[in-house]
Amino acid sequence: MSSSDIFIGEFIGTAVLILLGGGVCAAVTFKRSKAYQAGWVAIAFGWGMAVLTGAYISAGVSGAHLNPAVTIGLAVEGGAEWGDVPLYIVSQMAGAMLGATLVWAVYYGQFHAHLNDREIVGGPGAQDTAVADRKEAAGPGPVLGIFSTAPEIRNSAQNITTEIVATAVLVLAILTQGLNNDGKGLGPLGVLITAFVVVSIGLSLGGPTGYAINPARDLGPRTVHALLPLPNKGSSDWAYAWVPVAGPLIGGALAGGIYNIAFA
Amino acid sequence: MSSSDIFIGEFIGTAVLILLGGGVCAAVTFKRSKAYQAGWVAIAFGWGMAVLTGAYISAGVSGAHLNPAVTIGLAVEGGAEWGDVPLYIVSQMAGAMLGATLVWAVYYGQFHAHLNDREIVGGPGAQDTAVADRKEAAGPGPVLGIFSTAPEIRNSAQNITTEIVATAVLVLAILTQGLNNDGKGLGPLGVLITAFVVVSIGLSLGGPTGYAINPARDLGPRTVHALLPLPNKGSSDWAYAWVPVAGPLIGGALAGGIYNIAFA
Amino acid sequence: MSSSDIFIGEFIGTAVLILLGGGVCAAVTFKRSKAYQAGWVAIAFGWGMAVLTGAYISAGVSGAHLNPAVTIGLAVEGGAEWGDVPLYIVSQMAGAMLGATLVWAVYYGQFHAHLNDREIVGGPGAQDTAVADRKEAAGPGPVLGIFSTAPEIRNSAQNITTEIVATAVLVLAILTQGLNNDGKGLGPLGVLITAFVVVSIGLSLGGPTGYAINPARDLGPRTVHALLPLPNKGSSDWAYAWVPVAGPLIGGALAGGIYNIAFA
Amino acid sequence: MSSSDIFIGEFIGTAVLILLGGGVCAAVTFKRSKAYQAGWVAIAFGWGMAVLTGAYISAGVSGAHLNPAVTIGLAVEGGAEWGDVPLYIVSQMAGAMLGATLVWAVYYGQFHAHLNDREIVGGPGAQDTAVADRKEAAGPGPVLGIFSTAPEIRNSAQNITTEIVATAVLVLAILTQGLNNDGKGLGPLGVLITAFVVVSIGLSLGGPTGYAINPARDLGPRTVHALLPLPNKGSSDWAYAWVPVAGPLIGGALAGGIYNIAFA
Repeated sequence: MSSSDIFIGEFIGTAVLILLGGGVCAAVTFKRSKAYQAGWVAIAFGWGMAVLTGAYISAGVSGAHLNPAVTIGLAVEGGAEWGDVPLYIVSQMAGAMLGATLVWAVYYGQFHAHLNDREIVGGPGAQDTAVADRKEAAGPGPVLGIFSTAPEIRNSAQNITTEIVATAVLVLAILTQGLNNDGKGLGPLGVLITAFVVVSIGLSLGGPTGYAINPARDLGPRTVHALLPLPNKGSSDWAYAWVPVAGPLIGGALAGGIYNIAFA
Repeated sequence: MSSSDIFIGEFIGTAVLILLGGGVCAAVTFKRSKAYQAGWVAIAFGWGMAVLTGAYISAGVSGAHLNPAVTIGLAVEGGAEWGDVPLYIVSQMAGAMLGATLVWAVYYGQFHAHLNDREIVGGPGAQDTAVADRKEAAGPGPVLGIFSTAPEIRNSAQNITTEIVATAVLVLAILTQGLNNDGKGLGPLGVLITAFVVVSIGLSLGGPTGYAINPARDLGPRTVHALLPLPNKGSSDWAYAWVPVAGPLIGGALAGGIYNIAFA
Repeated sequence: MSSSDIFIGEFIGTAVLILLGGGVCAAVTFKRSKAYQAGWVAIAFGWGMAVLTGAYISAGVSGAHLNPAVTIGLAVEGGAEWGDVPLYIVSQMAGAMLGATLVWAVYYGQFHAHLNDREIVGGPGAQDTAVADRKEAAGPGPVLGIFSTAPEIRNSAQNITTEIVATAVLVLAILTQGLNNDGKGLGPLGVLITAFVVVSIGLSLGGPTGYAINPARDLGPRTVHALLPLPNKGSSDWAYAWVPVAGPLIGGALAGGIYNIAFA
Repeated sequence: MSSSDIFIGEFIGTAVLILLGGGVCAAVTFKRSKAYQAGWVAIAFGWGMAVLTGAYISAGVSGAHLNPAVTIGLAVEGGAEWGDVPLYIVSQMAGAMLGATLVWAVYYGQFHAHLNDREIVGGPGAQDTAVADRKEAAGPGPVLGIFSTAPEIRNSAQNITTEIVATAVLVLAILTQGLNNDGKGLGPLGVLITAFVVVSIGLSLGGPTGYAINPARDLGPRTVHALLPLPNKGSSDWAYAWVPVAGPLIGGALAGGIYNIAFA
């Protein structure tokens, strides 16, 4: 596979993934969205089907890694060249940043209405559910939540453990399909299965940290949050940013090792 | 593929698509429906599975475009003949109008009860959720919402941007499968994947405008709304009608161009 | 295919279909069920996946009609022998009655607790939603609703129209796959697609009548409701029983005719 | 298939199954989880997709039984060697215990916050729904519910009947696919179908007992609950533990017998 194929496939595929994944977070967060408060089932299927769409578009071009943790896992396992890893990761990061910017474009009016109308979040109109109560306390938190992940209980050791385990499940499932044939060979059925694996991880392991399970998915949009001219946007929470980068990378490498020891 | 195949496949397939897609909007809108207030997950899966059903029925006959934006995208990309485009679009529009009329037939009693009992919408029996509050203010809006889309925040530049991006994702996903083999060749697995891509777009990008992503899906039913003898039906909102036509056509053409530049 | 294959496949397949389909109705109806009030998305996926399971088990044996309307549609279209129709329908009815009886066995404790504790339905503990309000007024209605369908607005012409249209969509989708090869040939992918077609019909067209779309699905369990020794069970509503029999049969035949005219 | 393949496939596959299945129970139970109160649709899809992920990872290694009831059903039917049964079951039990321990690791902070803050469950902050009311009364019940199943209405004859019927449906569906070719041969499409069969059973038959349908799924995590150093964890409810072991084993054997009599 040529460098150009890798760049184009990963850049466009990851952009679509983050546009759709960030999109579902925006859709359930903003009061003036038709999917307002659609709940965690919407989030989990939204991200799963985002993977389906992004991977389907890029599978035949770059093998649809769309995730540095997947690339690292494949490199450890032997299905990807170590020399290609930097290009994969750069392309994924660039795509993730484009995707997050497109979320802002698609929901531009909603971002503006939300950030200039603070009482929507914590005022008398707030929904009196436990979830809304927590978000109220967080102030502008919901807007950062459209870009990047944050833990429910902040504890680095705990949070990184969650991300390592969740990512290891993802990468192990990807390695057990024929993806390791030189990075190609992910057919439509493999894309479908992988998408439902992501639905599974979201429903089951997403509770504590919001399941980054992909460094590009978290760091790219977080960078865009820091750069965009959003009023009242609050902190980009850089103190937490290393967890959804390190955890998934460790989890991906771990899965590659488990695969080589147990299955190869 | 003969002209007769194109007409029959697109007419019946689009009619089924709009019957099921408009049907789920009716199902969640009417108080005297078993799916009343089933939420956005129901809407997003309802439209996605409507695409599945309509495309499955017509895939082997006309290639299952069911959407002028898909036809334009394929023509730009080279997978459809420009000379066939008018017949595709006319067939899709006719099918969409039949589908919208069938929604009225299936939910005839509910339309009648709803429109003659205005206090259901805004009276003491109204559900006190934010969504219901908005709909209450809109008066007869929910009935038009069964036929065509409306934005949450009305702003032409914003709304058309949302429709362009959402449609480009749809058409790019369709182009990357083998649909471009003379318009045929969409197998059951391709239908399934495309349906989940539509679920994804609904969950993630449907929040601002209700994701027309298909000129026939919006303009056909809107025309039927204008023609049907519904009491108290209110305006057909023609001022907005150009957005869900122009946005998807631009998005479809854009996807064709991106595909030719990046993937071909 | 032998008579014995037809009987065994349709009997067991329809029993599984009705066990799972009636089961999800019980699951969301009973207060002492873990799925209490899980909503219409649960119902629509519950019935769709019930079709998946019943059809998967019987596809290789009897072709998995599981529905007199499908059998009639295939006979009209030419994919099933008219001479086999009576055996198919008798087997389906017998299977549906077994399935409904198994629902009673699985939820025996819940039936007993519910029917002997009437204030659960209409007393101070009732959920104050519109749906519960309606059910409260219906008295023992929820128990009949586990067995057979009932319209939200009772009007024979309206209700039969809804059932005809919904069944025609189902049977048209089934006819367009290769099911018409002597009644066999429904592979796993066809089963999966058909299941999602049923999800679609449930979400979109189930609102007015609860989508029987299958005479055996309604008449079999209704008969079991009449026969079972349930306390306070109320009427089996025989006045409505002809609609979910006649509507689906007409819809199935109509789909066979449309298929032969338009697609053959 | 070698003993080593059986052990590795079943151990890792069942660990992943229980990690994801127990995970979704934790995700909806804990107040400080993003999926708090996501409902029964989340539970049913969570367990179904847990089966998908675990089975996909292990299908090519051990045939992905992941469940003593499946192994017994295959042995009765003839698709598995009786001599391999003990190794399958031991591997599944060990994997289930690892999986339950990983749930604890992933949700460590949530377990700790929950068990040390009892008023979350029954205090003024409790959600006033019927489900929460019941859980409140149960005291520390929700934590055991993340590990093992408990009936809504406790009655051994009733509960074991429910488990027998639900498991028989599962194993019958598995036997009708080509799994019986020496325990291998479960392809991606078979995994997908089986996962949706589990979604179906959860939605439809899970209401009374929480659908163990797998002795390892219940007994392994219950043992871990007994062993883990959790404060205020309450009883492991050993009095009920035999039901979700015996019921599924009987159901699996029954399905094997039905298959041999009816389908073979």
